[in-house]
Amino acid sequence: MQSVERLQRTFLKALESSMGEPEWSRQPDRLYAPQRYILAMGGKRLRPVLALMGAEAVGAKAELALPAAHAVERFHNFSLIHDDIMDAAPLRRGQATVHERWGVNTAILSGDALFALAFKALESAPKAVLPDLYRVFTQTALEVCEGQQWDMDFEHEDRVEEGAYLRMIRYKTSVLLGCALEMGVLSGGGSVELAKALYSVGLELGTSFQIHDDLLDAFGDPAKTGKQAGGDLIQAKKTLLWIELGRRSPEHIQEALALHGEERVGYLVEALETTGVRAHVEERRRVHFDLALEALEHAGSLGARTGDLKELANWLFSRES
Amino acid sequence: MQSVERLQRTFLKALESSMGEPEWSRQPDRLYAPQRYILAMGGKRLRPVLALMGAEAVGAKAELALPAAHAVERFHNFSLIHDDIMDAAPLRRGQATVHERWGVNTAILSGDALFALAFKALESAPKAVLPDLYRVFTQTALEVCEGQQWDMDFEHEDRVEEGAYLRMIRYKTSVLLGCALEMGVLSGGGSVELAKALYSVGLELGTSFQIHDDLLDAFGDPAKTGKQAGGDLIQAKKTLLWIELGRRSPEHIQEALALHGEERVGYLVEALETTGVRAHVEERRRVHFDLALEALEHAGSLGARTGDLKELANWLFSRES
Repeated sequence: MQSVERLQRTFLKALESSMGEPEWSRQPDRLYAPQRYILAMGGKRLRPVLALMGAEAVGAKAELALPAAHAVERFHNFSLIHDDIMDAAPLRRGQATVHERWGVNTAILSGDALFALAFKALESAPKAVLPDLYRVFTQTALEVCEGQQWDMDFEHEDRVEEGAYLRMIRYKTSVLLGCALEMGVLSGGGSVELAKALYSVGLELGTSFQIHDDLLDAFGDPAKTGKQAGGDLIQAKKTLLWIELGRRSPEHIQEALALHGEERVGYLVEALETTGVRAHVEERRRVHFDLALEALEHAGSLGARTGDLKELANWLFSRES
Repeated sequence: MQSVERLQRTFLKALESSMGEPEWSRQPDRLYAPQRYILAMGGKRLRPVLALMGAEAVGAKAELALPAAHAVERFHNFSLIHDDIMDAAPLRRGQATVHERWGVNTAILSGDALFALAFKALESAPKAVLPDLYRVFTQTALEVCEGQQWDMDFEHEDRVEEGAYLRMIRYKTSVLLGCALEMGVLSGGGSVELAKALYSVGLELGTSFQIHDDLLDAFGDPAKTGKQAGGDLIQAKKTLLWIELGRRSPEHIQEALALHGEERVGYLVEALETTGVRAHVEERRRVHFDLALEALEHAGSLGARTGDLKELANWLFSRES
């Protein structure tokens, strides 16, 4: 955790000082206040930390990757603002979502502006790698939109295959983690080959991370996660748990759909245990974690310093929130 | 019109052929179909034509500015998708708006993806000017968001000053026209000074263009504009006509607000004539047109070829739709 905490501090300091820059006090304030609000909400700052680690992995100063770190964090928060509208979510991290507080129109628009500010952050990256950074970042942005659309499409589908689910979270979540690492490496002057190698680490970490989130929803401690226990189950969200239970035991899904709220959660939590679905999904999480470590080893063989990233991977794997 | 039509054709051909590229047949189709739909809707293609003219103004081939042309056209259409959601508009160019046809969530998301694709278009621009193009484009994108927020803020204000209105349309409309020209010049290898000079031309043209739109809403021929006569008046939109009438004769505004639909339009159209507001607003339109021609002359003195742009300016000034 030492390096993770160190780089979280590096990023938070940069975030705070960036908030003093003229671009954040532009008018109209109604456009910028929601962006400052969501950026200040906290969180693990995982994506910017990955960007900074990417630079350090090639022996460069973390600071070189600060533009990339701001870009991925801004992009992530833009996507949260818009996703929360689409999910009609009232709360995020225990606080009102942007559209709840300012209305849907301002949420759409301040999200758009934050997307633009993500690109703006890249302007101060090392000039030699600018075209590469823009290319990687743009492609990732597009894929995240695709992932969100897959996710929305699932709502209307009776049956989703595990493969389709994994592709969805790969786009919706994993590519941005990969992009953060790749842009960090490029910002630090690392080779394209090394950047790609660490991109793969981010992809697998992201997939393990998202499956972990699905598990925490059902089996985590709400006091630690800060989320409603079984929120996904209540909404019948097609997570890996739901999909696999449907495949193994459709009658459990039928029964669950007849129940509501906490009753449904209690019923499903037990069903997921007894049917072995929880164990299956835990195994998927472990597989992608192992793939991340393998990819990391490959990056190491190409010359990357992998110690801090291993620390971060283990921290993510053992997290309870 | 000769050059305008020639460059419209150049762009339309490029647009059509770009639609055959793999990026437009990516999945999920529900994300891309709305983007293809709005890009195919037609229109004057003013922004891409300006980008191409920017390159030709410095003696370069128009084709060099095609990436910039795609970028501004995609960005413009992204903003239309999101603006139509915010305005709850059911129709655009006589066809269903994206959110009407696919729902608000898909409209938000396909708009986001089109924004990303706008940045993607820039990737094939001449490499030497890439950082400048990204910088100009990003700043413009941000300002367009600011303009839209100003516009939404006006809805809640009792009184808007002419200056505030002009600032709003400068951001919401004019900067993108300026950006198109500036990116065109840069793509054609023109100097930063010349790019800035043509940016100013775009700013003034855009302002004249938007005031023209306001006038066409009240006094245009619906058969030619393809829009509901007096749509802005019915919605009590704070255009320059509305603002100036409120300043000169608040009692006319009071009377108008007690009327509805076509009755309100008929009443206001007459009031705008008798109070001299129409003439005042026509004069504002003319002033910004003249400023555009002055800026164009300045660009000419710096070495720009200005003939086609003058043709385009005159075409815009005399348009009835």
